[in-house]
Amino acid sequence: MSLIENLNWRYATKKYDATKKVAQADVDKIIEAARLAPTSSGLQQFRVLVITNQELKDKIVPIAFGQQIVADCSHLLVFAAWDRYTAERIDLTYDTITAERGLPQGRFASYTDRLKAMYLSQTPEENFVHTARQSYIGFGLAMAQAAELKVDCTPMEGFDNAALDKLLGLPENGLRSVTLLPLGYRDAEGDWLVNMKKVRHPKEKFVVEVN
Amino acid sequence: MSLIENLNWRYATKKYDATKKVAQADVDKIIEAARLAPTSSGLQQFRVLVITNQELKDKIVPIAFGQQIVADCSHLLVFAAWDRYTAERIDLTYDTITAERGLPQGRFASYTDRLKAMYLSQTPEENFVHTARQSYIGFGLAMAQAAELKVDCTPMEGFDNAALDKLLGLPENGLRSVTLLPLGYRDAEGDWLVNMKKVRHPKEKFVVEVN
Repeated sequence: MSLIENLNWRYATKKYDATKKVAQADVDKIIEAARLAPTSSGLQQFRVLVITNQELKDKIVPIAFGQQIVADCSHLLVFAAWDRYTAERIDLTYDTITAERGLPQGRFASYTDRLKAMYLSQTPEENFVHTARQSYIGFGLAMAQAAELKVDCTPMEGFDNAALDKLLGLPENGLRSVTLLPLGYRDAEGDWLVNMKKVRHPKEKFVVEVN
Repeated sequence: MSLIENLNWRYATKKYDATKKVAQADVDKIIEAARLAPTSSGLQQFRVLVITNQELKDKIVPIAFGQQIVADCSHLLVFAAWDRYTAERIDLTYDTITAERGLPQGRFASYTDRLKAMYLSQTPEENFVHTARQSYIGFGLAMAQAAELKVDCTPMEGFDNAALDKLLGLPENGLRSVTLLPLGYRDAEGDWLVNMKKVRHPKEKFVVEVN
């Protein structure tokens, strides 16, 4: 099926069948789509955490304001972005790029110097505005990949970020949570949204032709 | 081809063949993928502007720090997010949803009241941090759709947002530019990146299994 057919198929699943697990090969593809996401300067400013432990998922229910889907899903993905830019993070990416492409190390030094001058003069909070944005590209592509595989998922922003960060030890790893993405299979009988029509603003209101 | 194959195919095109135009049907599909993007509370907090006028594209070159791709591309998409939340914007979406689903108007009033209480107590800048994030989901899906159609594109954040907003009259429409996406067909001979290996951090560094 085409991407558009897949996007029409998907919906924000409201109830999961807790007995059904997503195959590891499918989870791998969903993560791979996020890994391949384009990001600003190619820095991949985010990471994906994968949670399957039931006890841990249960602990996240109150952090997600009681939403049971984080416990009933098969795999809970956490998209977490860099809490700030550092020279080391920028250099690691470009050292990897030069190594993989067989280019001399430092080939992109003038470019990375400009990135460092720009980002390291900002506050961590300003940095995070930017790194968090990048994670949404991967978040969207992960949802598209899930739909291609007919795996259900639920994009979620509604949770206590600081509490989740603490639970998962994200600050020690220089990360902050941005979004959650439960993966699994719908329990259609208990899902109020499953049979509702998908609604979007019409194309005429969404697109502005400027000519 | 699968999404993963398409993501491996795509790259941030650095030079376009200015003589080649993307068919309108393909542009329509790329925009449709962005329109179908999931967004927070289904609000679709962004719009896509489509620019084909050569004079206007030329005017954007200096705003994009001299990057000629915005002039040479076939279609220049501008992703622009709401400059702030308003009660009207929230109500419009939910009035559309209830109408399309044949539900009584006001069916989601307690939910929209909560959204208004949350967003309208924030500053416009805090609002924009959130609305801009949503636009990246559509931005990513538009790139995936372009790749499915073998249309080249270039994700761009590097431009003078305020100058572009002014040129396009975005403030009067309650919008602020976030990203640019030139669409077109590569001029492989003039493109330094086209034959470079795509580099990403390895899966082991990108994924964190928490169990």
